[in-house]
Amino acid sequence: MPISDRVKKSMENGSWIRRMFEEGTLLKEKYGAENVFDLTLGNPVMEPPPEFHRELKKLVDNPVPGMHRYMENAGYAETRAAVAEQLSKETGIKFTEKDIVMTSGAAGALNIVLKTLMNRGDEVIVFAPYFAEFINYIENHDGVAKVLPTDDQFIPKLDILEKSLTTKTAAVLINSPNNPTGAVYDADFLAKLGELLKDKSRELGRNIILINDEAYASLVYDGMVHDQVYSHYRNTITVTSHSKDLALPGERIGYVAVNPRLEEHSDIVNGIIHCNRISGYVNAGALMQRVVTRLQAVTVSIPEYQKKRDLLYNNLTEMGYSVVKPKGAFYLFPRSPIEDDVEFVNELHRRKVLVVPGQGFGSPGYFRLSYCTDDRTIEGSLEIFRKVALKYKLS
Amino acid sequence: MPISDRVKKSMENGSWIRRMFEEGTLLKEKYGAENVFDLTLGNPVMEPPPEFHRELKKLVDNPVPGMHRYMENAGYAETRAAVAEQLSKETGIKFTEKDIVMTSGAAGALNIVLKTLMNRGDEVIVFAPYFAEFINYIENHDGVAKVLPTDDQFIPKLDILEKSLTTKTAAVLINSPNNPTGAVYDADFLAKLGELLKDKSRELGRNIILINDEAYASLVYDGMVHDQVYSHYRNTITVTSHSKDLALPGERIGYVAVNPRLEEHSDIVNGIIHCNRISGYVNAGALMQRVVTRLQAVTVSIPEYQKKRDLLYNNLTEMGYSVVKPKGAFYLFPRSPIEDDVEFVNELHRRKVLVVPGQGFGSPGYFRLSYCTDDRTIEGSLEIFRKVALKYKLS
Repeated sequence: MPISDRVKKSMENGSWIRRMFEEGTLLKEKYGAENVFDLTLGNPVMEPPPEFHRELKKLVDNPVPGMHRYMENAGYAETRAAVAEQLSKETGIKFTEKDIVMTSGAAGALNIVLKTLMNRGDEVIVFAPYFAEFINYIENHDGVAKVLPTDDQFIPKLDILEKSLTTKTAAVLINSPNNPTGAVYDADFLAKLGELLKDKSRELGRNIILINDEAYASLVYDGMVHDQVYSHYRNTITVTSHSKDLALPGERIGYVAVNPRLEEHSDIVNGIIHCNRISGYVNAGALMQRVVTRLQAVTVSIPEYQKKRDLLYNNLTEMGYSVVKPKGAFYLFPRSPIEDDVEFVNELHRRKVLVVPGQGFGSPGYFRLSYCTDDRTIEGSLEIFRKVALKYKLS
Repeated sequence: MPISDRVKKSMENGSWIRRMFEEGTLLKEKYGAENVFDLTLGNPVMEPPPEFHRELKKLVDNPVPGMHRYMENAGYAETRAAVAEQLSKETGIKFTEKDIVMTSGAAGALNIVLKTLMNRGDEVIVFAPYFAEFINYIENHDGVAKVLPTDDQFIPKLDILEKSLTTKTAAVLINSPNNPTGAVYDADFLAKLGELLKDKSRELGRNIILINDEAYASLVYDGMVHDQVYSHYRNTITVTSHSKDLALPGERIGYVAVNPRLEEHSDIVNGIIHCNRISGYVNAGALMQRVVTRLQAVTVSIPEYQKKRDLLYNNLTEMGYSVVKPKGAFYLFPRSPIEDDVEFVNELHRRKVLVVPGQGFGSPGYFRLSYCTDDRTIEGSLEIFRKVALKYKLS
């Protein structure tokens, strides 16, 4: 094959999520979309909130000269200030526009942060189950992903983390609220994690950066509030996007937020801005930056997602599936009734329910369902989950 | 510094273009924008054409459900088909949507193409003067930029190229119409280049890919038509954007076009799509993809740019500056009247004219002027260029 060995390898490993999504497309063509129940992709079926449409229309009806030109690689100062203001409100920590870099989604954000921090061969810790793209993003910049386990509630095991940090560790990458498990790390856990990283950084003589991918920060349920990481550890960087809270995944708009108290703050922020440029992102889309400037406090309907979670969780649990109740995001990560999660996923696939096997997230023996879809799809899938539960004598 | 050695090095080398742009910002704050004549950045002052505003408004006034969701990583089939149709018209070669990948500008396009093609340590040939980001983009993916010279008309020297191709050569990267020189490679040159690459590929046992960055393809003057590369060499990939033809640099919308006759076409296209995903671009912005779908045949006013070129070129030549007349793009690349181009640029800078030294493009002894700016700026700069010409006794 005429393509690079690394890309070839990455393609062979593939993305289970995309693979299932594409198989689903074929299945829908064959049997009709109404007969296929696709729970594979985190691609919200919900429309952006009305405020988004109003704001977009206002900007388009009143164009400002130069509004589609290049701006600073960090993004518009006004947009960054609006993000900083909202973050300040949410965290009680004073952010300014100097702490924010607007990016092409959380994926763009994470790539430029990793590129900034890692020397070739440096390690980044990730916890299984993990969002599979994390591995690609780390390897894009010649880093090594070191995968550590979580406990039965999908919370990282800190004793194992402690033993795994070395002078090669550039960063610890967490993702709370979590894809694929829906776990949300609480303040108590974050405090312990922060303490551990502080101690180990001192011991190792290297400031280990804690990165939290907060793409699902707005999507937490049962009246909970997502706990912020900044006050628990100084050397913290978060990446996020408006793909989930404003249902804009196709528009690629997000940002990096750097803890104002981060050591060597300006070197790192300047590095991130530089990497936004040299990675070829250059800047986040101009129009979308303007749109989100006044939408920082807006989200899609969270109760609607919670209803979907409850519908799926309650039914699957009642059928005998073993599921840790997710506190956030829009995924469930139940145990596969049989050891071989791929075989189980194929069984569902034959019955026209599409989910992603746990090994796509580094955790065989599980499967992921995405519930950012319509109720018809969820309800249709439940009938089939019930039949499969009976077949495997789950209750 | 806590940032990666490579990023640190890249920051130290810096971007002359951005550095001058930022110095210009300071100068404008100090003396008032009306007293500073900034010819540094390729950031068109022209507004997008009226068709762009109409199309954007139409889409925003009539939103389609799901129009901000993820789509295929390659981009919307409809958008790719529209690009393919226009390319077919312009080149006489039959392109289909399978040959097109929508990207985050030409920068995003080039990065995913290079990532797809290069193994670690592979070489990519570039010709000085070059767009400085090319070096960053090649190094992003662990490639080595091999810089070769051009002749006195800024056309690559093929005899030197021939001797420089090895089994390590993954690609030859050209940029016609050219930034920073405005040179446009004609069909005769492209035919010779294609022949050379065909022969050397056979001899070396490696299909060397020819990449043309065509970001300025619409901006050619004197009634010329930009010569397409595809018919001259089979293994050709082009990258481009709508930053220049539609004046949308801030929106990051462009594409990769793969020669339909490329060997191992589907492997390479699939690799490029995969790299669009794993690089963190995921997909080109959804709304901008829809906007450009119906604007493939639209451009900003080319005669207006030609007028600006003529104004600058005629005046500078008459003053005694040595300039190769540009046939395209929106730059002039005159010889510096003194050997030290940085010293000359500083001299202009003290007189509040901002340009970029040639060494920012790998060609010391020259300087670049960008004329995608308003006539007031160009005219204001001319007065100062005249004074400096007298000082250096150019005529």
